Amino acid sequence: MNGADLLCDALLAQGVELCFANPGTSEMHFVAALDRKPKLRCVLGLQEGVVTGAADGYGRMADKPAATLLHTGPGLANGLVNLHNARRGHTPMINVVGDHAAYHLVHDAPLTSDIDTLARPMSKWQRRIAGAGTIAEDAAAAWRAALELRGPATLILPADAAWGEIAAAVPVPVPAPVPPAPAAEALETAAALLTSGRRCGLIMTGRALRADALETAGRIAAATGAELYSQMSNARMERGAGRVPVTRIPYPVDQALALLGHLEVAILVGAADPVAFFAYPGKPSRLLPEACALHRLAAITDDLPGALSSLAEAVGAGRATPLRAQRADPAEGLPDGALTADAVCTLVARRLPENCIVVDESVSSGRVFYKLSASAPPHDYLQLTGGAIGEGIPLATGAAVACPDRKVINLEADGSGLYSAQGLWTQAREGLDVVTVVFANRAYAILQGEMRNVGVNAFGRNAERMLSLDEPPVDWVALARGFGVEAARATTVEEFAKLFEGALSTRGPFLIECLT
Amino acid sequence: MNGADLLCDALLAQGVELCFANPGTSEMHFVAALDRKPKLRCVLGLQEGVVTGAADGYGRMADKPAATLLHTGPGLANGLVNLHNARRGHTPMINVVGDHAAYHLVHDAPLTSDIDTLARPMSKWQRRIAGAGTIAEDAAAAWRAALELRGPATLILPADAAWGEIAAAVPVPVPAPVPPAPAAEALETAAALLTSGRRCGLIMTGRALRADALETAGRIAAATGAELYSQMSNARMERGAGRVPVTRIPYPVDQALALLGHLEVAILVGAADPVAFFAYPGKPSRLLPEACALHRLAAITDDLPGALSSLAEAVGAGRATPLRAQRADPAEGLPDGALTADAVCTLVARRLPENCIVVDESVSSGRVFYKLSASAPPHDYLQLTGGAIGEGIPLATGAAVACPDRKVINLEADGSGLYSAQGLWTQAREGLDVVTVVFANRAYAILQGEMRNVGVNAFGRNAERMLSLDEPPVDWVALARGFGVEAARATTVEEFAKLFEGALSTRGPFLIECLT
Repeated sequence: MNGADLLCDALLAQGVELCFANPGTSEMHFVAALDRKPKLRCVLGLQEGVVTGAADGYGRMADKPAATLLHTGPGLANGLVNLHNARRGHTPMINVVGDHAAYHLVHDAPLTSDIDTLARPMSKWQRRIAGAGTIAEDAAAAWRAALELRGPATLILPADAAWGEIAAAVPVPVPAPVPPAPAAEALETAAALLTSGRRCGLIMTGRALRADALETAGRIAAATGAELYSQMSNARMERGAGRVPVTRIPYPVDQALALLGHLEVAILVGAADPVAFFAYPGKPSRLLPEACALHRLAAITDDLPGALSSLAEAVGAGRATPLRAQRADPAEGLPDGALTADAVCTLVARRLPENCIVVDESVSSGRVFYKLSASAPPHDYLQLTGGAIGEGIPLATGAAVACPDRKVINLEADGSGLYSAQGLWTQAREGLDVVTVVFANRAYAILQGEMRNVGVNAFGRNAERMLSLDEPPVDWVALARGFGVEAARATTVEEFAKLFEGALSTRGPFLIECLT
Repeated sequence: MNGADLLCDALLAQGVELCFANPGTSEMHFVAALDRKPKLRCVLGLQEGVVTGAADGYGRMADKPAATLLHTGPGLANGLVNLHNARRGHTPMINVVGDHAAYHLVHDAPLTSDIDTLARPMSKWQRRIAGAGTIAEDAAAAWRAALELRGPATLILPADAAWGEIAAAVPVPVPAPVPPAPAAEALETAAALLTSGRRCGLIMTGRALRADALETAGRIAAATGAELYSQMSNARMERGAGRVPVTRIPYPVDQALALLGHLEVAILVGAADPVAFFAYPGKPSRLLPEACALHRLAAITDDLPGALSSLAEAVGAGRATPLRAQRADPAEGLPDGALTADAVCTLVARRLPENCIVVDESVSSGRVFYKLSASAPPHDYLQLTGGAIGEGIPLATGAAVACPDRKVINLEADGSGLYSAQGLWTQAREGLDVVTVVFANRAYAILQGEMRNVGVNAFGRNAERMLSLDEPPVDWVALARGFGVEAARATTVEEFAKLFEGALSTRGPFLIECLT
């Protein structure tokens, strides 16, 4: 056997079953090895941003890492955008980046680049494989690091390590890391703060946003009067009717300041001290009031549900009844007439199927969706965690691979979707059950707003041409069909309602372009 | 005025007239400043790979740098692929990468990343702007570095440096760097080697491949019997009937070894010691025979045409008549019947319009094009210099912006084109005169060949799904129309000939999908 065979075996031994891939010549021995291991399913992306974004979506929903296969430095570079999002969202994944044979690097062939340096900013862990002999240990270490550090672990695989012949070996799986419990002192302090009579907020993210953990948080809130918040952007939240709702910290700085201004204590459960997404002249970076006490109960790598359980116990929240979201009347507030972004959001929220997965890259168009969908049937809600747009289509793709029996609904801003529309092809090829709802406002609308924030209200030619997408308009229906996905256009609420209903009642990928 | 205004003025003072852009919130003040400077034309790309690839194409044809505008680390990351190609092709360009305000970085907002580290592998020069006060010097230094070091120069622009108010200033332009002449000793040695009676090859790239420099090289060859070669991949070559032809070192290792096996002396004119694109078990990395003497006449940053002139003088090649390519009969060897990749290449070569620009990202499909087009009317020939596929459409876009009066013909492999098909939209928006010829073999055909090289002839499910693009087939006509570019499909030679003729006789972007 060769190093590539052993790499496949080692990944399989750790339970890695998916490889999102875009290979090249330096990875041919690995491709050949994968071809001998059909249990490790390979899913092709037409560009590496699709590959890494899909691995992010898969990891969020499967709670275990997929592998990616990327071709040398430029292949990794294309994938970095969604490794950034995965790193920010704490998604485990294992990137296998092929490189030239070690002895070939000194010759500086055209496709040579400094992969080690490129990988560093977006990886939580990385290692260059020294040779075929260590591959099983390297793969196990990457797997463990992805789960322990919660994020992308990157293995650089030189071609001669892949093709190097070694004695037959059966990799011994390493155990999964156990996330640590928070320190007793941190727990005591949190409990003391919560019962101090001061106005407290729990700011949560990560596994604290799963239904069970939220139920615990809801009991804490009921017992202590604490308020429940989530970070602005979260990898995955289990929410909807019957679940404990949390207030998401909003993106606009002034709204966030107003929301949090009364807090005297903030207890961080996996979350970071909340800050503005961008800096603006004359506005603060931090969103909590200066006087607000900040206490970290648990870091993102800790056992967050466990930390909340311990805290509930410490504050005596055992029998408290949490406030749960009520199911809205599906007909309540249904729009008609002109198809605005708000109307699309309302309709989607009201028609959301039970147990679906919502991917939200709607940017400025989806403003009202989060609030409206709190009372929708239970669903998972996946956001853009690192602010690097263009992940929606890949993320939905990966989530659908992880959960083939659940409907995935991707709310997609048109500007963002155009970064990685190639992901639609993977949806078609794999027959994934994804409905993509494109908000076609034909502009980088959020940037037009930011320009007005900067004091520019009348756009000249340069600004117009950098912030508008209407000349020519992109035909999303043609684009989707080009990639093999059926699609249709909606210009009225009635048309959208009918198309959305149809998409929900059939399986397979479908795209609706909403002219809003 | 603010720092962003000064940056625009400084770029304009150095003659920078184009900014390929994909902005975000942290660049809003720069966007507003650009909007006040319509002389600095902004061209939007829907993804940053389009932006940097277009800047590469522009730089190759304009012989001066364009600016790019990229949004923070992930925007830069998306653009790295074609910065890699530009770096390998020695194309000057100036990247302006927006970052958070300096004081905001410590808060580690979601879109924060280590831009300095990300930029390093693909930049020849980089600098983080310290504040609005130094922006004019920083911009001039970047401009000079891009030309002197020949490649991407990257400026990181913190938002507060852009919005920082400063006293009105008029930037003083710095002079363009003068490429150095080769050392006298290097010249003497080269002349001595050329007249030593040994079998000599000149291996050239960069400006040595412009028509005038090739004419000089042709005189040297005529006077000394030296053979003329170019690197495997070159940023730009002026070639065709009436010009001095060079033999390009082929991609397949065995072919390259066979071609160069007889050389006793290799003189490098801008080129590097030729090496295999990839390493293969049991095959050498270097392509020249072990015993071949290697002499570097001039580095890529030197004055290559001047070096050739001096060498011609030193070997007494003054009156020699170079061998020039003869014009082929346009009807010679014209194919009919089934539309093979070779047939498309033959037809394009025979119908090539005078003074056009050919972008060649045809990968395995374009095998015969280089040879056939040697006898076509004079044209510029642009290749993928770094081997990072997906640059063809952006490169053609940038070349067309630089040369609005010349027809651009982009020979595009379908797998490669799918990495950056978004570039078609920029062609539509700017009304660029580009004909894209897609070789739709619906596979990563080169990789299927490499798999066979690795000894795998029967593909299983994983290999099939990683190397084929036929399930579902991509509909390039729909895709192009989705992006606003008119398109049609050819299934026979006659259909292709008619469509190509039609595309040549009208202005504006057009795409032909060739089912080969």
